[in-house]
Amino acid sequence: MTREELAGNIRRKGSFLCVGLDTDPGKIPSHLLKEDDPVFEFNRLIVDTVHDLAVAVKPNLAFYESMGMKGWMSLVKTFDYIRANYPDMFLIADAKRCDIGNTANMYARTFFDKKSSGFDFDAVTVSPYMGEDSISPFLSWPGKWVIILALTSNKGAADFQFMQEKNGERLFERVLRLSSAWGNEGNIMFVAGATQASLFKDIRRILPYHFLLVPGVGEQGGSLAEVAENGMNKDVGLLVNVSRSIIYADDSENFTAFVRQKAEEIRNEMNRFLK
Amino acid sequence: MTREELAGNIRRKGSFLCVGLDTDPGKIPSHLLKEDDPVFEFNRLIVDTVHDLAVAVKPNLAFYESMGMKGWMSLVKTFDYIRANYPDMFLIADAKRCDIGNTANMYARTFFDKKSSGFDFDAVTVSPYMGEDSISPFLSWPGKWVIILALTSNKGAADFQFMQEKNGERLFERVLRLSSAWGNEGNIMFVAGATQASLFKDIRRILPYHFLLVPGVGEQGGSLAEVAENGMNKDVGLLVNVSRSIIYADDSENFTAFVRQKAEEIRNEMNRFLK
Repeated sequence: MTREELAGNIRRKGSFLCVGLDTDPGKIPSHLLKEDDPVFEFNRLIVDTVHDLAVAVKPNLAFYESMGMKGWMSLVKTFDYIRANYPDMFLIADAKRCDIGNTANMYARTFFDKKSSGFDFDAVTVSPYMGEDSISPFLSWPGKWVIILALTSNKGAADFQFMQEKNGERLFERVLRLSSAWGNEGNIMFVAGATQASLFKDIRRILPYHFLLVPGVGEQGGSLAEVAENGMNKDVGLLVNVSRSIIYADDSENFTAFVRQKAEEIRNEMNRFLK
Repeated sequence: MTREELAGNIRRKGSFLCVGLDTDPGKIPSHLLKEDDPVFEFNRLIVDTVHDLAVAVKPNLAFYESMGMKGWMSLVKTFDYIRANYPDMFLIADAKRCDIGNTANMYARTFFDKKSSGFDFDAVTVSPYMGEDSISPFLSWPGKWVIILALTSNKGAADFQFMQEKNGERLFERVLRLSSAWGNEGNIMFVAGATQASLFKDIRRILPYHFLLVPGVGEQGGSLAEVAENGMNKDVGLLVNVSRSIIYADDSENFTAFVRQKAEEIRNEMNRFLK
């Protein structure tokens, strides 16, 4: 999907919401556990419920891999279902991969080459620790995106991401500055956590136009208003991810009503910022 | 596997070789392609050929994931075959995962919880970019290890890993210093590339006793002699990984003879350093 198409979907839907599918069989409504594939069934119901309120869906690979072959199969079915039914959905593999060039090539095939792996996500998250040759192999896939970790939403972000050079540049700023040059605003986004929203002004000073994928609203406590105020640009430039507080809004048989209500609340708040 | 058991295997076998299973169907001997599962068949033959010359085996997850469900199945079969036939082999999932705590918990289940995923590797590689809470969930598994990226073997290592604080500490040194405190010498190793072997003295000044997993000998040009000279400690403290130059030593029907010859050369050189 191009930047223009993504920005168009955001305007049309009045939403820059990304729904994270961190699907854990221990947390989904118990009546679904009698299904053949409860994880897929849950994901299908979630996506059917929020498809008009969200522009992106982000399966978190760890949750599927932790169930081995069965989990991988649930992810394949989820992917195929969304592609077949909601072709305008921006699909992000939240995988945070990171390896040397010949291996990064293989990871690119995992997430982008449908013939090889069964998937052709629009984007994959990556960690920048190993530098340019660990990221550039993803950028040779036309129409595909990498989303590079810059400033994450967790406590451990402070351990390394704020390390500072003599000239005052912090590691997350160096990541933004160097790695933005490896591609362009149409194939690179950055992860910036909502719990760090006060620093979004610093990010926008370095990269005014790039899209940011923003986790940390909801369960982790980040503020949507602060993110929008400090992070929005002329193409909106934000995808705000919410996982747990939407998908686990309720665990009754009627859970999708609560899921929809929660997603609508967030979309309505977003829509106000878009106006 | 404990540190004592690993060090014992190294002394007994006269080897600190780790063989990397970066298995690519486009590179394996063509006569294997007629098998039901050429990737598993190749891996089985490689491990049967080198099992007495190596102390560790390291499947590179990207190569299996890139083939989707089929690749995941080949990895499960490879894992089960090695565990059943070579129980003293240290098994490393080269996955370089990295995510917030609740997700890192899921990745730990992927690689360590056989009931959940089918795997219980001895160790998994991780990226430190997201800090302590992205790594500590792996450390609560008794007998299991994390292997943290510190100084990698690729060109892109220079982009961020040498970033320097005012006090002179570089990012890879900060990773060694901070993250070594999250566990101990019996559950944390670090990745240090052989192409950076001149810096192993700096690493040993910070962490004299930890094991290092060392990629970059062979295809990438690192020197085993320099690694051994600058990196070895009283428990050896090194696992040197070689992938391509062993497993793709030849592509004829008789390829295992060349694989064995190459692995023997490396083991013999290692054995000289051990004496």
